[in-house]
Amino acid sequence: MAKNFGIAIHGGAGTIRPQEMSSVKEKQYKEALEEAIQAGYDILNHQGTAMDAVEKAVCILEDCPLFNAGRGSVFTSDERHEMDASIMDGKTLEAGAVSLVKTVKNPIKLARVVMEKSGHVFLAAEGAEAFAKEMGFEQMDQDYFYTDFRYNQLKLAQASNQVILDHSSDIEKKFGTVGAVALDQYKNLAAATSTGGMTNKKYGRIGDTPLIGAGTYADNRTVAISCTGSGEYFIRNNTAFHIHSMMLYGKKNLVDSAFHVVQEELKSIGGDGGIIAIDHLANIHFEFNTEGMYRAARSSESNLFIGIYK
Amino acid sequence: MAKNFGIAIHGGAGTIRPQEMSSVKEKQYKEALEEAIQAGYDILNHQGTAMDAVEKAVCILEDCPLFNAGRGSVFTSDERHEMDASIMDGKTLEAGAVSLVKTVKNPIKLARVVMEKSGHVFLAAEGAEAFAKEMGFEQMDQDYFYTDFRYNQLKLAQASNQVILDHSSDIEKKFGTVGAVALDQYKNLAAATSTGGMTNKKYGRIGDTPLIGAGTYADNRTVAISCTGSGEYFIRNNTAFHIHSMMLYGKKNLVDSAFHVVQEELKSIGGDGGIIAIDHLANIHFEFNTEGMYRAARSSESNLFIGIYK
Repeated sequence: MAKNFGIAIHGGAGTIRPQEMSSVKEKQYKEALEEAIQAGYDILNHQGTAMDAVEKAVCILEDCPLFNAGRGSVFTSDERHEMDASIMDGKTLEAGAVSLVKTVKNPIKLARVVMEKSGHVFLAAEGAEAFAKEMGFEQMDQDYFYTDFRYNQLKLAQASNQVILDHSSDIEKKFGTVGAVALDQYKNLAAATSTGGMTNKKYGRIGDTPLIGAGTYADNRTVAISCTGSGEYFIRNNTAFHIHSMMLYGKKNLVDSAFHVVQEELKSIGGDGGIIAIDHLANIHFEFNTEGMYRAARSSESNLFIGIYK
Repeated sequence: MAKNFGIAIHGGAGTIRPQEMSSVKEKQYKEALEEAIQAGYDILNHQGTAMDAVEKAVCILEDCPLFNAGRGSVFTSDERHEMDASIMDGKTLEAGAVSLVKTVKNPIKLARVVMEKSGHVFLAAEGAEAFAKEMGFEQMDQDYFYTDFRYNQLKLAQASNQVILDHSSDIEKKFGTVGAVALDQYKNLAAATSTGGMTNKKYGRIGDTPLIGAGTYADNRTVAISCTGSGEYFIRNNTAFHIHSMMLYGKKNLVDSAFHVVQEELKSIGGDGGIIAIDHLANIHFEFNTEGMYRAARSSESNLFIGIYK
């Protein structure tokens, strides 16, 4: 059994400033991040798998209405919710993803069942819902996903005729995706990402979150990555696989690869957001080009870390 | 103006054997490939753009009922058609993609309009249809997409309870995606891919074709790639971006990169199919691990090439 193991999570990146955050709100975010990271860490510490750890941590973040995923998902233009998620196993390179899912409580669980039982990698829209039903997933009422905060965001967005990512004021831009990456005691890596998308979005828009290689990637040879940011740019930049390939073929370490991809390649086309990563030696790294990113980490080699601002 | 320019296209890869191909059928395929490659080449030769050349070549292949894209698309389990397409501009790294589109004659044209006018990269299902309607795309009847050949394939698949890729007999396995890659006289690269998916598919399955980085990628620094094959494996392997990143970060040439990604990395997880590529110096390359791939190429430096078997 290897000694080194660890987990890192994020709850979105963006314009997150201490002067605009109440101490009550900040405490709520930190408590939610701590609950998720501890649950994932406990699984790893008890010799559970990285796949189970990232799924559990993401489920907790999906269930928390503070984050734009699962229960706290933002509203589409027609006052519904469309959620995306993906998960990848670094040992087998197997992966599962869902998009435009409307009634599933934990999209990340559905993504894993897609991986394990559908014979496919990526299911979307009505088809994904039908598959969820066949697999025995409970269909949640739209009420379950309702929060005043998100509904007000929609009304604000509609008033200004904007498709917005997850912001609550004009100067604040947030990408409220959640995600987790982990290395377990068997030296296996895993990554998982989940999102409620963009407030006021139309047209069945799919961002980077459910796209293997863009929002999520894991390969035992290198690294596990989960992303959050302006999805269109992360797709064009192939952010998650991009960092992996720079390590694998460019022989760069995690820190240099993540810096180059997020601060240079992604920025050069106008993308903002960030990534969380853990490599095959349990090195954990956060890289973001925004003012803040909700994040936490804990490994066998390091104490609990929770961060919000730069 | 650079001297070197060129274009390559594919009409799918798989178990394609001379002993199972009639001379009439072979002639039809070759004529269709020649028409598409010539149309793309003419655009480049008259100083048109790589984006226009790949869009035009793919449109011609979509309109030809021989190929599983556009008009010749296979049937889903409920006797409908769900088509996917994507396009990418190697100069700007802008991209557009659509998935689960049911009524659009040329999905590749819709992908380009998504890129140019939606503010997004990837639209799917009903939303993509609504966007197409707003943009003035004609809605085709389901009759337009009907072919006896594909309908019989569905009935065969349903009789054997199989989700199959595009095969017409048990020993034949074909991936009928179409695609094009080009370099224009302005030294800009572009790639485009389009598919009708899998016969008898359910659950809104999305393959690699509409995924930027998996089925399609172009970057002026390196290469333009379009893929065809067992989509799930191409997603997990991030095939198109994979070849690009090996060239960019691993400093390998196109031939070595394509060989490693298709014959080693992709094969090691069980994926079969192939890729077409053109690099920034107009070197054209085909790489496939199946028995055949419908393909053609023409460049300012080389005569017309049309191939089917290995």
